[in-house]
Amino acid sequence: MSFQEILVSTAASVTTIALNRPDRLNAYTPTLANELQTAVQQAGVDPDCRVIVITGEGRGFCAGADMGVLENAVASKGTSESKPNGSAAPAGDPRFSAAPGPALGDVYAGRFGYLYACPKPVIAKINGPCAGIGLILALYCDLRYAAEEAKFTTAFAARGLVAEHGIAWLLPRLVGEANALDLLFTARKFTGAEAQGLGLVNRAVPGESLDALVDGVAQSMAKEASPRSIAVMKRQVRASYFQSFGESLAIADAEMKKSFESPDFGEGVKSFVERRPPAFPAV
Amino acid sequence: MSFQEILVSTAASVTTIALNRPDRLNAYTPTLANELQTAVQQAGVDPDCRVIVITGEGRGFCAGADMGVLENAVASKGTSESKPNGSAAPAGDPRFSAAPGPALGDVYAGRFGYLYACPKPVIAKINGPCAGIGLILALYCDLRYAAEEAKFTTAFAARGLVAEHGIAWLLPRLVGEANALDLLFTARKFTGAEAQGLGLVNRAVPGESLDALVDGVAQSMAKEASPRSIAVMKRQVRASYFQSFGESLAIADAEMKKSFESPDFGEGVKSFVERRPPAFPAV
Amino acid sequence: MSFQEILVSTAASVTTIALNRPDRLNAYTPTLANELQTAVQQAGVDPDCRVIVITGEGRGFCAGADMGVLENAVASKGTSESKPNGSAAPAGDPRFSAAPGPALGDVYAGRFGYLYACPKPVIAKINGPCAGIGLILALYCDLRYAAEEAKFTTAFAARGLVAEHGIAWLLPRLVGEANALDLLFTARKFTGAEAQGLGLVNRAVPGESLDALVDGVAQSMAKEASPRSIAVMKRQVRASYFQSFGESLAIADAEMKKSFESPDFGEGVKSFVERRPPAFPAV
Repeated sequence: MSFQEILVSTAASVTTIALNRPDRLNAYTPTLANELQTAVQQAGVDPDCRVIVITGEGRGFCAGADMGVLENAVASKGTSESKPNGSAAPAGDPRFSAAPGPALGDVYAGRFGYLYACPKPVIAKINGPCAGIGLILALYCDLRYAAEEAKFTTAFAARGLVAEHGIAWLLPRLVGEANALDLLFTARKFTGAEAQGLGLVNRAVPGESLDALVDGVAQSMAKEASPRSIAVMKRQVRASYFQSFGESLAIADAEMKKSFESPDFGEGVKSFVERRPPAFPAV
Repeated sequence: MSFQEILVSTAASVTTIALNRPDRLNAYTPTLANELQTAVQQAGVDPDCRVIVITGEGRGFCAGADMGVLENAVASKGTSESKPNGSAAPAGDPRFSAAPGPALGDVYAGRFGYLYACPKPVIAKINGPCAGIGLILALYCDLRYAAEEAKFTTAFAARGLVAEHGIAWLLPRLVGEANALDLLFTARKFTGAEAQGLGLVNRAVPGESLDALVDGVAQSMAKEASPRSIAVMKRQVRASYFQSFGESLAIADAEMKKSFESPDFGEGVKSFVERRPPAFPAV
Repeated sequence: MSFQEILVSTAASVTTIALNRPDRLNAYTPTLANELQTAVQQAGVDPDCRVIVITGEGRGFCAGADMGVLENAVASKGTSESKPNGSAAPAGDPRFSAAPGPALGDVYAGRFGYLYACPKPVIAKINGPCAGIGLILALYCDLRYAAEEAKFTTAFAARGLVAEHGIAWLLPRLVGEANALDLLFTARKFTGAEAQGLGLVNRAVPGESLDALVDGVAQSMAKEASPRSIAVMKRQVRASYFQSFGESLAIADAEMKKSFESPDFGEGVKSFVERRPPAFPAV
């Protein structure tokens, strides 16, 4: 399958998806949104892929909504209101096409829900500017690594917009309410280095070291971790927010029982006792 | 309107409310509680105000409940029990007057709920001692900035009291459960510098730089952010704790649609394209 | 009562429970699990105990499940499935005996729930390796202090296991989702120093200073804090996760009223005014 606005490659069990509009700092368009979703879903079922990395071509990660798209929205305001709207797609948002997303259940029905539904770890490698909807994309990834000098901003308050696409829910849980309100209310720019201090990214390093850092993390997961374990744990963590502690424990116990029956458990214990790397099957 | 125990002034779109019992380190009294609520509610509807700053006159922010009030409570214990109690006011708490607060809905019905109900950002500028109910007041503000040398303490466990007025709910979400239990169980003193490390304040600086820091943050919000955006985002974040992710997304989508129709969106995009500061209307 | 795999001693109001399988880095066994629960429950009702410290004998804290137990589980897999299973006990988990735990209510029904049910502060003093179920044990304690050089790992993904016993619920709330997924997905080793940076432990110090640090915290709680206040606050914080803010406030108000009637409140205010240490009764 060929894409217009992203680049996809797989090597050593890691699929890299690069947003590919470098002359626009990879600003978000409906085409880019659709292609990204397709590529993640393909990688999710590709037996050669154990880890997915999303990054940007050129100097940027994703500078937010394409301004041309936003200016059209301002010019045409009012008209989109008259369109019928019954789908799960982001109706009224000019940054997305009209195509409805897949049915992802009630919990994560949003347009980035496919990232949570993916059974494989998704890493955001934030190489440069990360703003507005680009920041939201990064927040939906499982892990985030950034160049120290990369610039971040929520952007919304400076454009008269709101806390879009779940960032009101995600950001306080990640950086604490006080920091979330600061970043949302001021729309100020902050660096990857500060983002690490806030807990918004797992780690920030000088830009020239970012590839090596992310390669290391991705290879560690691809070679040493059970894909089955990761898939189950990703579901467990994301479900936990909507569960009582008792419900979460009951699921943990049921999954633990199943894990004892899996080949991965046998291989995990055996490889440990034999002091050799594990050879876990693909999911 | 004239106040006895607070000072209120508005300049450059920022309303500063200073607790004004400097000889008692601004210890909390029923009068102070009532006046503070009145002043915040007035600022909330004042078109000349875009940001509210709460601070303390003199050396302190708020040293907690006035000891005279607490000693009276010890002396009279038992008698307050016999009073009828059907209001939303903090019945039985000698630190508050008997006047019930406004109806703030079911979610934030507590006596500091008016701070959450206020559509404008509320910043705590913590210039000195911040203890007990003074710390709770600060926790209900949206953003907190502190002098590095300011002393903080929960105080409750050292007085035989409990986790009052919602601090059991707020503190673990802000600093993590382990740190919250430490601060609650030990009632130990900690500084503004440590408070920043814990995530309890957004930032701490040497006392002589605190005014400039808070002025900068307040002016940034007053001049560059849409008041409408801030009001919507404040509601979104505070509501998110009681919503499923799907509910939060649905509200975000509905609010996004409305924002596309607002003059603030047009002005936000236009001013960005024209590379000039935005001129957003008051809410 | 004499124990086989733990050591228990009480001095200066602090009960220390040391896991005592130093030649196995205190790896977890069913016997150890049962004895630990018994010891914590005894300390919980011992009037001479105000604070509980859990630590490890020798070089380790708890290196996870005993490998002999796990290897047996691999060898016998399938057979445990046929056993009837209707109790609250960790059915199917070879690391626990079959004895059901006490009825701890619906919320914290898991096999570490007794630590939450204990009305006294429980401190984990993490002196060395802390892995797998040993890490989970530490997460259920109220406070955690570690040697900077102590090695931590979740371990599960490297063994083909899942996020067991509530760690999927606990870890994201403590260190943020992104860090939780990193630690769960990679199963990488990290030090006590990094654990402090992540917020996983309250504080890490060089190993030779750990005893003094924990003694200081324990003595501060034993001497300066009301045991009644601590017991109420521990319940308040742990219950808050399953309450709306309004529910949490209502309980805070009810508990506040009760605290005003307690001898601890009188003593707390009196000792403060008289500038002397408080003398709070045991709970």
